[in-house]
Amino acid sequence: MYKKLFIPGPVNVADDVLERLSTPMIGHRTKEASDLQRSIAKKMQKLMYTENTIMLSTSSGSGLMEGAVRSCTRKRAAVFSVGAFGDRWYKMAEANGVPADKFSSEWGKPTTPEMVDEVLSTGKYDLITITHNETSTGIMNPVEGIAEVVKKYPDVVFCLDTVSSMGGTKIEVDKLGVDICITSTQKCLGLPPGLAICSISEKALNAAKEVPNRGYYFDLLNLYNYIQKKDHQYPSTPSLPHMFALDYQLDKILEEGIENRFNRHKEMAEYVRAWANKHFKMFAEEKYASNTLTTVKNTKGISVSDLNKELGKRGFMISNGYGDLKEKTFRIAHMADTTLEEIKELLAIIEEILAL
Amino acid sequence: MYKKLFIPGPVNVADDVLERLSTPMIGHRTKEASDLQRSIAKKMQKLMYTENTIMLSTSSGSGLMEGAVRSCTRKRAAVFSVGAFGDRWYKMAEANGVPADKFSSEWGKPTTPEMVDEVLSTGKYDLITITHNETSTGIMNPVEGIAEVVKKYPDVVFCLDTVSSMGGTKIEVDKLGVDICITSTQKCLGLPPGLAICSISEKALNAAKEVPNRGYYFDLLNLYNYIQKKDHQYPSTPSLPHMFALDYQLDKILEEGIENRFNRHKEMAEYVRAWANKHFKMFAEEKYASNTLTTVKNTKGISVSDLNKELGKRGFMISNGYGDLKEKTFRIAHMADTTLEEIKELLAIIEEILAL
Repeated sequence: MYKKLFIPGPVNVADDVLERLSTPMIGHRTKEASDLQRSIAKKMQKLMYTENTIMLSTSSGSGLMEGAVRSCTRKRAAVFSVGAFGDRWYKMAEANGVPADKFSSEWGKPTTPEMVDEVLSTGKYDLITITHNETSTGIMNPVEGIAEVVKKYPDVVFCLDTVSSMGGTKIEVDKLGVDICITSTQKCLGLPPGLAICSISEKALNAAKEVPNRGYYFDLLNLYNYIQKKDHQYPSTPSLPHMFALDYQLDKILEEGIENRFNRHKEMAEYVRAWANKHFKMFAEEKYASNTLTTVKNTKGISVSDLNKELGKRGFMISNGYGDLKEKTFRIAHMADTTLEEIKELLAIIEEILAL
Repeated sequence: MYKKLFIPGPVNVADDVLERLSTPMIGHRTKEASDLQRSIAKKMQKLMYTENTIMLSTSSGSGLMEGAVRSCTRKRAAVFSVGAFGDRWYKMAEANGVPADKFSSEWGKPTTPEMVDEVLSTGKYDLITITHNETSTGIMNPVEGIAEVVKKYPDVVFCLDTVSSMGGTKIEVDKLGVDICITSTQKCLGLPPGLAICSISEKALNAAKEVPNRGYYFDLLNLYNYIQKKDHQYPSTPSLPHMFALDYQLDKILEEGIENRFNRHKEMAEYVRAWANKHFKMFAEEKYASNTLTTVKNTKGISVSDLNKELGKRGFMISNGYGDLKEKTFRIAHMADTTLEEIKELLAIIEEILAL
């Protein structure tokens, strides 16, 4: 009945991790709850290469994206978009009355350091948002180059959406100078959806202090102050099942070795890219192709939805293209605990169905 | 290691319900996801006695409380507070720049229909928030009487926090004319924290259309439009584990019979109140005492925290008083799947520890 998922979230979750969701409840105002949440924070700091404070949010990643742009924009936000999730970040700014401008790349192309430099050099902006990995197009932005540019503008709060890349590729938050780095559980971390995570810097917190009407649930400064005061506890009752499972899964990730995990993602990505180039074409500019999912250009004019139906009968599932890219592309995620062997199995079955 | 919880959420969750959290993942843009979410909505409509649209939110109940006051206040909100959670609703209005006034009752006293009438008769307000059941004080407000009054003011959007009562006592949403009725999973519904639920009326939706800057994640109108268009799917990835478990637990609740469930809560409440009056005193005005938890006045000057430590050794847990009421009161929740037998067992152990 259940399919093996090769969609960009939710991902397959290992049985032993799923079981941890079923841990009996504890009080959320107990020492056990503090211990659990502190333990998660410490492990996330390792995975994110940061000493910044880690905050959890019972929400999807979108919640923290909204919180970041609303809590920390003093003057004006520069939102860089390379697809649907960049567009969403701009929509969030608009929906909150946060002054913002959107700088879009053609779908399939990255945000370049040059673009960022040009925009920030105007002096109009004090916050930027970058999508690290865009699941609609399969682009992974050149974050190192962008980070170098951002460092030239010390007043700018640097927000990075790593929802679909954190845990699947190395993102050195402190080295890059990322002020708010956001991810969520249902992608490369290999957990079910329902919990989001961010790191936050002193600079971002100081920026928030100057912003009125930051709201409540996603007010990042309020969240920070609360967990400082209450030893990692949260203002309202958090999703304990996700926390039990995340704490456990982070042990498994650290046991695999984070470099090994990143290499596994890279190997899977290279394999899928070679396959895509052999039978179809890549949608993303190859130099910026994502290590966690591949968007394949449907150069053969196959029916993606029929392909997925056939895959479904065999217990597999991939994603059709996103929005306007439906049927024009299809997407294969290679993230979380998926192995190269599973990817090979999937692609062999696709070849068989399509008689490639 | 795990304690039996008699705290006002999180509550004990039955093993078979916990197991449902571990259901393997499905795509959140699939027919299966729509079916699951539609199934939950239909069952929640029964439990809430409403034909209004049911919306789920991956957040705590606080998220939807914020969404309600922010999305639907056109002129000014009247926030009625009988404790910590009413105060929180006011804080949310303030934090979003929503014009609002707070009308507080002395802790332990209810919001009365007369208070509401007096406030609404000024014509200044087009939204009110009422806490149905206040876990800080153990008050259950006289919602029928309040509802009668609110009906005199057809422009007013009626928001009701039933986070700690829905599923434990009868709340006839449509009969009462509640426009936005909010609850969450970790109280009387007998599930882990991590998901919130509300019903929303046409009137509330029409009000939202007049409000700018409603935000994104908790914009109730956006949420509504999305689930209408996408057959019960949600704008961002929802907590599937909670949905699997909620759908299953709602079957169990309907199987028990909702009237039976409410009676069980009433019986437990009466037993705890009689016990409280015998050995201590009630904190809440008795006529308005909650059916889902009891706040006991610590008339004997016991150390509540020592009592809880002793209970902990025996595998039980109650709550100390909330905020300033710490040590001056203690709280015993009798909600969700707790039985009268378990309550009797708990109280007997407390008597033994305190040598009552």
